[in-house]
Amino acid sequence: MHPNSTIIDFTSETSSNGVVERRFVLDEITGVLFSPTTGNIGSPLVLSGHSGGMHKKAPGLVASALHSVSMFGFTVAAIDAPGHGDRPRNRRDRQRADAVRQARSAGEPIAPIVVDYTTSLAKRAVPEWQTTLDALQALPVIGPDRPVGYAGVSLGVVTGVALAAVEPRIAALSFGGVFVDDVLIDAARKVTAPVEYRIPWNDEELDRQSAIDLFDAFGSEEKTLHAYTGRRYPVPDYELDSAARFFVRHLRPTSGATPK
Amino acid sequence: MHPNSTIIDFTSETSSNGVVERRFVLDEITGVLFSPTTGNIGSPLVLSGHSGGMHKKAPGLVASALHSVSMFGFTVAAIDAPGHGDRPRNRRDRQRADAVRQARSAGEPIAPIVVDYTTSLAKRAVPEWQTTLDALQALPVIGPDRPVGYAGVSLGVVTGVALAAVEPRIAALSFGGVFVDDVLIDAARKVTAPVEYRIPWNDEELDRQSAIDLFDAFGSEEKTLHAYTGRRYPVPDYELDSAARFFVRHLRPTSGATPK
Repeated sequence: MHPNSTIIDFTSETSSNGVVERRFVLDEITGVLFSPTTGNIGSPLVLSGHSGGMHKKAPGLVASALHSVSMFGFTVAAIDAPGHGDRPRNRRDRQRADAVRQARSAGEPIAPIVVDYTTSLAKRAVPEWQTTLDALQALPVIGPDRPVGYAGVSLGVVTGVALAAVEPRIAALSFGGVFVDDVLIDAARKVTAPVEYRIPWNDEELDRQSAIDLFDAFGSEEKTLHAYTGRRYPVPDYELDSAARFFVRHLRPTSGATPK
Repeated sequence: MHPNSTIIDFTSETSSNGVVERRFVLDEITGVLFSPTTGNIGSPLVLSGHSGGMHKKAPGLVASALHSVSMFGFTVAAIDAPGHGDRPRNRRDRQRADAVRQARSAGEPIAPIVVDYTTSLAKRAVPEWQTTLDALQALPVIGPDRPVGYAGVSLGVVTGVALAAVEPRIAALSFGGVFVDDVLIDAARKVTAPVEYRIPWNDEELDRQSAIDLFDAFGSEEKTLHAYTGRRYPVPDYELDSAARFFVRHLRPTSGATPK
């Protein structure tokens, strides 16, 4: 635990189908923690990054979290990106979000606007994820020994790549579709943890070649690319399952603890 | 069952770790059938095509067959390609095989030679697979109602694509790396069954772009491409598992029978 880390304040708790969902606040960060009702000592902790314009309880993120918690015993944490979900949005971010919406409804390419916006958001989100991870590992029910993975789509990918490039605790990464630019490519070169990266092959907003360039850029010794027919949403159920199995393979307990 | 189909002659039977292995002869075709010791009515039948120069009991093919039989209850059939394994090789095929070996040891590109050779072999193998499938479906222990999939690498891909292009009984295809040419691309366009296609991303003998072109060519509504770091062999265990899960998803029993 980082000496300056603050304490997580849990603000609500609900439980259904074997999954406990607890909302939390940590300084300015708002988040949610999904865990199995039967605690699994040493099972993976997965940090989950939502897409731009969404929030910690984005439908796809929640579907994936519930799958991996109930089927594989993982613990999943999600936080709102700066200016997203329960957090105030500053004027500059509001302007950027409006610009994305306007470009999309005008049928113009959104990639250039999205890339600038997400790069700015990810830069701010990286230290927030580190603070969150410090605080989660300080909780007795989680502790410092669980292996940690990161899952994300879109903005969540940009954040996760930047985080993994500087944060050795991230031991495996499972990503979905994302707009690719040179900043992201450069960060990917610094990532050495195993990566699973899935490309929606028929999403007209995403460029296939730049997706393959991103896959090539990862410095990871083991990396896997999945392309599936369809668009970014919904992610096929079998890919959710594949992501969880990927984490099972790579996130072995670091202490004597054994997973479920 | 085709009215002219001949009867399979089983020549040997061994059993270990819950898997029965039976060699068979069918006219000039030599093959092997892997099935669970506990019969699974209605579970998938997977036809497995070996690579060029190998045979019905190629190590990778057997590893994949044992995995899917013991873990998922499938029945797997493999036959020797013309001039491979237990079958006599004609002079023209011997010359082609020698040419591949010579080019490889001389460090020359083998793709052009391999492509001509495999195209010729696949053309002869397609009717043999159809004969084999007729005969297998005529067996009471298999029957006509099991859903049928096809798995293959290299030559096995060229054969499987050509087979699926003309054979509606093939309901799902899982492929590994292959040399791509226009004949293969044209056949792939005629395939409409779901496809899972895996590319070894670091195999210097295989061209990435032509692999992606082949993926694009498949006429299938659902298709998935997996690229993994490494070469053609060995295929990672998690990809064997993915292939079996792919077949589980797509090969539902066609009668009232239920799988394991």
